[in-house]
Amino acid sequence: MSRRSRGSNKWEVRASTLARNTHNLIRNIVENLQVEPNPSKQLIALSVGDPTTFGNLNPPEQVLQAVHESVEWHISRGYAPAKGHAEARQAVAEYSAHQGNVTADDVILCSGCSHAIELAISVIADSGQNVLVPRPGFMIYKTIAEGLGIEIKYYRLLPDEQWKVDLEDLENQIDDHTAAIVVINPSNPCGSVYSKDHLLEILDIASRNHVPIIADEIYEHFVFSNYEFTALSTLSQDVPILTCSGLTKRFLVPGWRMGWIVIHDRQNIFQKEVREGLAQLANRILGPNTLIQRALPSILKYTPQSFFDEVVLFIENQAKLAYEELRRAPGLRPVMPQGAMYMMIEVKMSMFPEFKNELQFVERLVSEQSVFCLPGQCFEYPNFMRIVLTVPEDILKEACLRIATFCKEHIVSREKLKEIDTN
Amino acid sequence: MSRRSRGSNKWEVRASTLARNTHNLIRNIVENLQVEPNPSKQLIALSVGDPTTFGNLNPPEQVLQAVHESVEWHISRGYAPAKGHAEARQAVAEYSAHQGNVTADDVILCSGCSHAIELAISVIADSGQNVLVPRPGFMIYKTIAEGLGIEIKYYRLLPDEQWKVDLEDLENQIDDHTAAIVVINPSNPCGSVYSKDHLLEILDIASRNHVPIIADEIYEHFVFSNYEFTALSTLSQDVPILTCSGLTKRFLVPGWRMGWIVIHDRQNIFQKEVREGLAQLANRILGPNTLIQRALPSILKYTPQSFFDEVVLFIENQAKLAYEELRRAPGLRPVMPQGAMYMMIEVKMSMFPEFKNELQFVERLVSEQSVFCLPGQCFEYPNFMRIVLTVPEDILKEACLRIATFCKEHIVSREKLKEIDTN
Ligand SMILES: Cc1ncc(COP(=O)(O)O)c(C=O)c1O
Ligand SMILES: Cc1ncc(COP(=O)(O)O)c(C=O)c1O
Repeated sequence: MSRRSRGSNKWEVRASTLARNTHNLIRNIVENLQVEPNPSKQLIALSVGDPTTFGNLNPPEQVLQAVHESVEWHISRGYAPAKGHAEARQAVAEYSAHQGNVTADDVILCSGCSHAIELAISVIADSGQNVLVPRPGFMIYKTIAEGLGIEIKYYRLLPDEQWKVDLEDLENQIDDHTAAIVVINPSNPCGSVYSKDHLLEILDIASRNHVPIIADEIYEHFVFSNYEFTALSTLSQDVPILTCSGLTKRFLVPGWRMGWIVIHDRQNIFQKEVREGLAQLANRILGPNTLIQRALPSILKYTPQSFFDEVVLFIENQAKLAYEELRRAPGLRPVMPQGAMYMMIEVKMSMFPEFKNELQFVERLVSEQSVFCLPGQCFEYPNFMRIVLTVPEDILKEACLRIATFCKEHIVSREKLKEIDTN
Repeated sequence: MSRRSRGSNKWEVRASTLARNTHNLIRNIVENLQVEPNPSKQLIALSVGDPTTFGNLNPPEQVLQAVHESVEWHISRGYAPAKGHAEARQAVAEYSAHQGNVTADDVILCSGCSHAIELAISVIADSGQNVLVPRPGFMIYKTIAEGLGIEIKYYRLLPDEQWKVDLEDLENQIDDHTAAIVVINPSNPCGSVYSKDHLLEILDIASRNHVPIIADEIYEHFVFSNYEFTALSTLSQDVPILTCSGLTKRFLVPGWRMGWIVIHDRQNIFQKEVREGLAQLANRILGPNTLIQRALPSILKYTPQSFFDEVVLFIENQAKLAYEELRRAPGLRPVMPQGAMYMMIEVKMSMFPEFKNELQFVERLVSEQSVFCLPGQCFEYPNFMRIVLTVPEDILKEACLRIATFCKEHIVSREKLKEIDTN
């Protein structure tokens, strides 16, 4: 009997390249922060992008009812097809009618929008290729791509133009190995909402360069008054688009892990391989939980518009509140969002010379004022921090006051700055 | 502005290597079958490994109650840590005490056992390495591995020794690139249950060759009277083991997608990289649905033993029934299972010369008798077919009668065979 010694004839088990190259940037940064809150003040975490954390925002009764009913159905316990039950996909198709002509065949149900993004990236990009992602932008793209040997290249967003895409930079980033452009609209972390015209400019670049788009529209319809949400896919003549969305944010159930991909492919460019590739990839983990799949038709049809309107109005008011408070805080420059659930705030580091970077600013804000904002480095975007707007109003107000106090205590006056400069 | 033409300056989007190499073998075979049932007989599908299909087997009331309660809890809507909520992991640790010393830290919650397998394979094996899998065996290993460039190598099971592992063959398959051995016990499709002694023999090979084990124990405790289930991990002195399991089969809720990995690592061999690698990989899709996570402690604690006993007893009786009926069918040789929910049946093809292979046998069985068994090719194991034992008793009986009739109608007598041979 052959008895090969494996390698050194001792136990030595490494993790795979995939595992070693998969990193959660936010977690890594947050875990390394020195964040001991001030024991005399209750900690306020403005860092977590989970609208359910504080208990003030809850899914509508209809949604819970639909799931209760689903629990009782015998059919909601068995396996679903890997792409999801036909009825659930049909319901998503109807719900996504604002994206253009969508049929059940164009829908793949996923285990949350993260899984939708994982499938979209991994069906379209190969090791050695690259995917263009906005900076600042949501970091799961990096987590997912780099493990697979897919490079993330950033294109710039312009903070002074409400985070519009720097189109020239976007086009400059495209090269022979570019497999897809990711467009996040409305945006995490920026809260920006793009106009039709701007989306057309982005599509034009994709079209001329023949690069497909992954449209992350998990915040679809999440826009403040006077702004309009346009699904990227409605504007595309040729560019094939995988739109990723789900229940997570709009229905306030991030833990339920129900997301989906909608395939938009007017010129049958995905028809040859990508569509089938997605169906095959869905086989790897056999789709999202069927309790929610079975409830999905009711969830999507019976949630009243008033529910959505109230949530968005609440967040808009929170955004105004935070903006008014923080723009008066010395050394900060909040950028008023147009949608989603976040606000980016510039920290003028030159006015806080005692801190080396915004990471130290954020750390000290925790230890003195017990307010935790996410440092811009979590989005590879230093000198900014992100706050979450879904916390209760009184807590947000208190947090803003504390931030302003902190800034007043640490800001260095212009005169003082000049002094420092001359020394 | 640079304007690189991507490739041929036209739309050409391929699917990734991962997508093109991910295949669901069973689906591909089943879809290509000529399976038009006989319109005068109701179709009986003995092919689907879903115990809920016929509605005769249902999860216990306690489980449904636990989920109803979870729907009402505000905390079951938010994000969980990627590895799962601490309470849910603690509950799995206690539930898995029969596997040895398990703490919450050793548990990673996954979206079904398939996802557990995906994480286990992808943390431990790299492109270019191989994983040893039993033949016949469950095919998701192939689906998951090949997309990642990981080779699947088979080791033989011995049908005449109740599907024990051919130990010599197993050891012969190990080479310098072997990253893991998969052991499925109890087995799909065989229904075999390994004795302690046999598991020790397998462990010995893994130990001497320093190959970690992935123990697929999704059918844990699913054993008939006079047999005993032993968790592989309890017997290991050194071999590090990732045990994959979940709610799917034992609690009759495959659609709920709740599975887990339990890390067994007495010699701290996974400690260096694999443990952290699993935690990082879990970040890709952020864990299974929190509704079930929150219900998990109640589900695992309050399901009465009598529920499990009844289900297993039912299946055992079904196995006996099918075995008795089918061993009298000419040309068939059923192998009596010792657990799980399946039975493998040898089709002595030489006695059915009109069929080229068991695929044709199975096809014709559908078109004449409207009974659908899964052909052995679905497990890369020709000349056998697999039936599912979870269907209602009268339906199983009817199916067996029809199979026997079919065999009688198509068997060629020994005399006749000799005649054919001499011509
Ligand atoms: C832009 C963006 N895309 C995707 C996701 C992931 O959503 P899910 O929780 O459904 O995986 C998030 C979550 O914060 C997000 O902000
Ligand atoms: C041996 C084996 N492992 C894993 C699985 C997958 O289980 P799950 O449905 O939890 O993904 C199955 C399902 O049939 C199986 O038979």
